[in-house]
Amino acid sequence: MRETDLIDRIRRLAGHSPLIRGIGDDCAILRPRLNEDLVFTSDFALEGRHFTLKTHTAADIGHLALARSLSDIAAMGAEPVFCMVSLAMPRNFAVQRFFKSLLTLAREYEMTLAGGDLSRFDKVVADVICCGRVPRGKAMLRSSAKPGDLIYVTGKLGKPRHRPQPRVAAGLTLRRLGVKAAMDLSDGLSLDLARLCRESNAGAELSFIPIARGVTLDQALHGGEDYELLFTASPKLKIPKSLATEIGRITRFRKILLDGRPLAPKGFDHFA
Amino acid sequence: MRETDLIDRIRRLAGHSPLIRGIGDDCAILRPRLNEDLVFTSDFALEGRHFTLKTHTAADIGHLALARSLSDIAAMGAEPVFCMVSLAMPRNFAVQRFFKSLLTLAREYEMTLAGGDLSRFDKVVADVICCGRVPRGKAMLRSSAKPGDLIYVTGKLGKPRHRPQPRVAAGLTLRRLGVKAAMDLSDGLSLDLARLCRESNAGAELSFIPIARGVTLDQALHGGEDYELLFTASPKLKIPKSLATEIGRITRFRKILLDGRPLAPKGFDHFA
Repeated sequence: MRETDLIDRIRRLAGHSPLIRGIGDDCAILRPRLNEDLVFTSDFALEGRHFTLKTHTAADIGHLALARSLSDIAAMGAEPVFCMVSLAMPRNFAVQRFFKSLLTLAREYEMTLAGGDLSRFDKVVADVICCGRVPRGKAMLRSSAKPGDLIYVTGKLGKPRHRPQPRVAAGLTLRRLGVKAAMDLSDGLSLDLARLCRESNAGAELSFIPIARGVTLDQALHGGEDYELLFTASPKLKIPKSLATEIGRITRFRKILLDGRPLAPKGFDHFA
Repeated sequence: MRETDLIDRIRRLAGHSPLIRGIGDDCAILRPRLNEDLVFTSDFALEGRHFTLKTHTAADIGHLALARSLSDIAAMGAEPVFCMVSLAMPRNFAVQRFFKSLLTLAREYEMTLAGGDLSRFDKVVADVICCGRVPRGKAMLRSSAKPGDLIYVTGKLGKPRHRPQPRVAAGLTLRRLGVKAAMDLSDGLSLDLARLCRESNAGAELSFIPIARGVTLDQALHGGEDYELLFTASPKLKIPKSLATEIGRITRFRKILLDGRPLAPKGFDHFA
């Protein structure tokens, strides 16, 4: 198939667009609404790093690639607007299955595919950019945690999922409840919490960890790929128990303790 | 070096930001201005496809990766705002030289680095996303060419440049002059003109090709990596000769002719 034929097929799959201009020009064009901030993230899904062709089908990879990026949109409390997909792949890769699966997930969030780049390569490499919108000044930040805030996580930790469901709805609910500080758990609670504390010039005391069935405490603390949300909120804010579990408290001391003992940030380091 | 240390160094290099929030959170945050449209593009630079480590240093690759993406911003007549860089690379890759060079080019356009993704990989893969701004409704489009328009290109064609200079200033000037239809030449004039004509439901008659020194007519017609701008304008519009060369005319017949003979779109197909 020629590149233009493939782009035509993807364009037909991409469906209705909130953009002024989507696939088919040098750039996509977005007309921002009044009083909104736009948030942007990009995430790799790399063969041999985030998946293998033995464990993941092209459809799994399409889902995973978008889910990784959407999880960052969820962490800001933003509503997804569009994604761009850069995909490099060998000749025998089922590229249409990749896009069908990615677009099935995109459609759940009424998000459009705005463009990207396609190339032949000897490995499968996807880079997915997501754009989300949030009312002006309301994005949840890593740097907004305050001493005295309670710390929460959605879901249970330690079990990487084959087709993770990004917590977009939970993120929107939390932002509307008034939560100011959040991030997504992609590299393990211990490392990600250390990042949140660092950006907020704070520390944390953990007292309870919701562990997924069949995994160890160590996996729940340091395993990656949870795609759950980690957030903090003033004790005055009512966080429904069905939404998240309270796991500890933000402190003014720049260390992280679990049951009174230091917790080393042992999560997944992409450079290790 | 750990990932957080590397991100800190890149963050210091990224400099002053027009963003509400740049590197350091799950997403970058942009507050749009009134009455502007935002344009977005993403482009791969892949080892063995767009460059090799024998012919390109890390600094060359950093420049090339951003230039490829900026060229699309130029084609819309947009002003660059920010870029995001996803970079996967082997352990011995000079990642700081890559970023220094990329950011030197970014600074020429007062553009900031807003984020991205970093990962180890066995090959060098960069995906650069650029965002630009343009007054509402004023972006130059591939689909705006009209029969009777004159066709122009900036510069001379056929000679791939090691460190291409994207035509951002020319794009801004053309948009301000009132040019409505443009695209960048990255895959060869014959293929790219066919794309512009297709999006505009039109054809073209070419009469003159500005050929770079030392290359053949075939290279000027079908070679890629020019990073010049192809655009069309009503004969009423005065296009300064110093800015671009007139090469032909848009027609209502959906074919492309050079000196009266059909010109096949033989440019670079990423899927060939």
